[in-house]
Amino acid sequence: MPEITEFDTIAAISTPAGEGAIAIVRLSGPSAVEIANRVTRGVNLTQVASHTINYGHVIDPQTQAVVDEVMISVMRAPKTFTREDVVEINTHGGMVATNLVLQTVLSHGARLAEPGEFTKRAFLNGRIDLTQAESVMDVIRAQTDRAMQQALNQLDGSLQRLIKQLRQELMDLLGQVEVNIDYPEYDNAEVTTKQLQAAVQKIIQQLDHLLATAQEGQIINEGLRTAIIGKPNVGKSSLLNLLAHQDRAIVTDVAGTTRDVIEQAANVHGIPLQLVDTAGIRETSNKVEKIGVDRSLQAVQQADLVLLVLDGSRSLTAEDQRLLQLTADQKRIIIINKNDLTPAFAPQDVPELAQQEELIFISAQEQKGIEQIEKQIQKLFFQGIATAQKQAVVTNARQVGLLKQAKASLESVLAGIAAQMPIDLVQIDLTNCWEQLGAITGETAPDELITQLFSQFCLGK
Amino acid sequence: MPEITEFDTIAAISTPAGEGAIAIVRLSGPSAVEIANRVTRGVNLTQVASHTINYGHVIDPQTQAVVDEVMISVMRAPKTFTREDVVEINTHGGMVATNLVLQTVLSHGARLAEPGEFTKRAFLNGRIDLTQAESVMDVIRAQTDRAMQQALNQLDGSLQRLIKQLRQELMDLLGQVEVNIDYPEYDNAEVTTKQLQAAVQKIIQQLDHLLATAQEGQIINEGLRTAIIGKPNVGKSSLLNLLAHQDRAIVTDVAGTTRDVIEQAANVHGIPLQLVDTAGIRETSNKVEKIGVDRSLQAVQQADLVLLVLDGSRSLTAEDQRLLQLTADQKRIIIINKNDLTPAFAPQDVPELAQQEELIFISAQEQKGIEQIEKQIQKLFFQGIATAQKQAVVTNARQVGLLKQAKASLESVLAGIAAQMPIDLVQIDLTNCWEQLGAITGETAPDELITQLFSQFCLGK
Repeated sequence: MPEITEFDTIAAISTPAGEGAIAIVRLSGPSAVEIANRVTRGVNLTQVASHTINYGHVIDPQTQAVVDEVMISVMRAPKTFTREDVVEINTHGGMVATNLVLQTVLSHGARLAEPGEFTKRAFLNGRIDLTQAESVMDVIRAQTDRAMQQALNQLDGSLQRLIKQLRQELMDLLGQVEVNIDYPEYDNAEVTTKQLQAAVQKIIQQLDHLLATAQEGQIINEGLRTAIIGKPNVGKSSLLNLLAHQDRAIVTDVAGTTRDVIEQAANVHGIPLQLVDTAGIRETSNKVEKIGVDRSLQAVQQADLVLLVLDGSRSLTAEDQRLLQLTADQKRIIIINKNDLTPAFAPQDVPELAQQEELIFISAQEQKGIEQIEKQIQKLFFQGIATAQKQAVVTNARQVGLLKQAKASLESVLAGIAAQMPIDLVQIDLTNCWEQLGAITGETAPDELITQLFSQFCLGK
Repeated sequence: MPEITEFDTIAAISTPAGEGAIAIVRLSGPSAVEIANRVTRGVNLTQVASHTINYGHVIDPQTQAVVDEVMISVMRAPKTFTREDVVEINTHGGMVATNLVLQTVLSHGARLAEPGEFTKRAFLNGRIDLTQAESVMDVIRAQTDRAMQQALNQLDGSLQRLIKQLRQELMDLLGQVEVNIDYPEYDNAEVTTKQLQAAVQKIIQQLDHLLATAQEGQIINEGLRTAIIGKPNVGKSSLLNLLAHQDRAIVTDVAGTTRDVIEQAANVHGIPLQLVDTAGIRETSNKVEKIGVDRSLQAVQQADLVLLVLDGSRSLTAEDQRLLQLTADQKRIIIINKNDLTPAFAPQDVPELAQQEELIFISAQEQKGIEQIEKQIQKLFFQGIATAQKQAVVTNARQVGLLKQAKASLESVLAGIAAQMPIDLVQIDLTNCWEQLGAITGETAPDELITQLFSQFCLGK
């Protein structure tokens, strides 16, 4: 973790851009209250109690011209988002008003905050760890209730606590190893080695369990890239519409509360699906058409999940066969549509279908069978790992990468013991694991990683 | 003004939709604090001091599940935006989190606010008048600093105060007329009539002065629809770009502070120009082309201002002549471009140009002469009426319409006096004027007008 230095005072607009009833210009740093006091007329902000809301006007100190009528929240360190003095100026909304207020504070001592700099300060000042910082952005970007719940758990520190506990266990092991190196005469080396093996295997199990949550965690967070394929008129668009309208709105029981946030996506039991409709995949010699086909093929290959739609009321064509072969190695759900009509074939008579574990029969026309697709998605991607509240879940590639490194270090420990390597070499691998886990929470993360991580945040956070 | 009734408690998201660092769910009404307390865990909000900020969690009271980690501002009546108890719940931002918080308060006693309903309550509870309510939206929608300043003046009540003063004068006159009707024996009718005439003429003058500010006020608020026309290759696009980039950004001296709010518009000394580039206007027999020409013609006819661009380096063509004739009756600025090249004609030799008061010579290529266009716009639309701070300015069509009605009523008063009509008929016209002015501030506005006015507001305001 970087050294904590004396920070300057930063400011940014913390509400989304656009016309709204209220916008917030946020300041954080040692001079936050003083700067706010300099550019406002009303009560003396340096004298007010902490965590109070004060009516006033932002003014240009030179011309005394009124910039906006505002409410000013004064929150003194340390009980603030950044653990620094924080001032939030609530303007009337509107971009001109809000920009003018920001410009005024920037002209009188504040510096424009970098993206994520408020959260970065919360981290550098020790209020949150890196997993919590990441979850702050996950909360903002959550597309479904489930993603939101997962981010909230992380924000609450569930992953941080588990990692801290594992690091403590590693520290204890390192202590034992140290004793063994320093005072070999007091210890039975063989017993220590066996204890070490058992302890390391237990930690590997816990890392495996955590890694097993990763796929689920990432899917909930980032969504499943889902390609719907099938020959023309097989019902792809109807299925897309059915899936997209299923649970689509966040709030359905109160009129007018929903703003369009999941425009292009479907939400299947809290799992966001990024639906891709493919133009069509067929053999062609036409150059222009071939480009379209190539793009569709690429979309299918990059998909996490393929929904392959067949028409149950007609015999399978060469195109159907081709699509079945093409996606044989992918996670896919084979959907036989139009089961409201007389079936034209029996799946067990079709070699490609007879091997399939599960086929889903639906009628997009009659809106029947959709829930079976949802169940199958659950089965394919969620191997019964409950994302119950408070459980630690790994939610992004950075965390997965570090967990895998940590696991590899422990495997080196086991290999070293098996090869009867000197115990101080084993010590190095144990220390590596301890550091790799520390990078997840940020306790041992290098400066560049921290800078890079926060630069992905939105302005004003 | 409608009767003040017992209000219920309303709630809405008051920040713009989208990803942001902070979003606000606002409640207003008698149960605001109680509802907020019901759905949060942390301190007892019913016990905290007014205008304090409190840390807590929004929870689902049934399941006790955490919905979001929040800061809760409690502001008790009457010193609030609505003059009712107001609670603002600052969420982590993000649409799912914010919608879940809104849904939770709506499920526990609050009703979703209609657009503008918070401001409407501020009006109904007597904190602001209608002109101030309108200025609240003008502040939000302001596209330039100048529009913002104008809206702030109005918000401060400058128009309201002037209207109130005029209504007081009318009330005094009505009192005198009343005395004249009730006790004709005590008064010299002729003297009263003369005094009345003088007083009414003085009020008409003030109304005229106010109406004269209307064009300027509306332009600053709504912008000038400006059509740029000219034959192909005359430099229309270059001029459009030059105007659009002139003072375009709100904040230019601090990197990163500008968010794109005036994308399609230019800002000339605080006057927003809505620039329309016309496809071309020429005689044609081609049907498809004719549709384009008709549309361009329509855009020109609807424009507040036409910028007609000629090429000074070539002789005028029939098309130039046609455009000059076509726009002869409109507010226009004739711009002779390419004055970096040798002139091909002398304006005084061209009949259509010789009559023109003022021609502007520019070089779009060398970016010269643009400021002359700006000066000419000032001259054409701003007849020296200073929009100094604190001056009352009329800013929208509703206010203009009512002012014109009020003026017409006073003209009827004068006509009635001239025709020696009975004084109680004069009294009716005076009363009408008093009511029409009252409708501007909302003191005598009918319910439908108020409902209609606030329905144009954004949600959460």
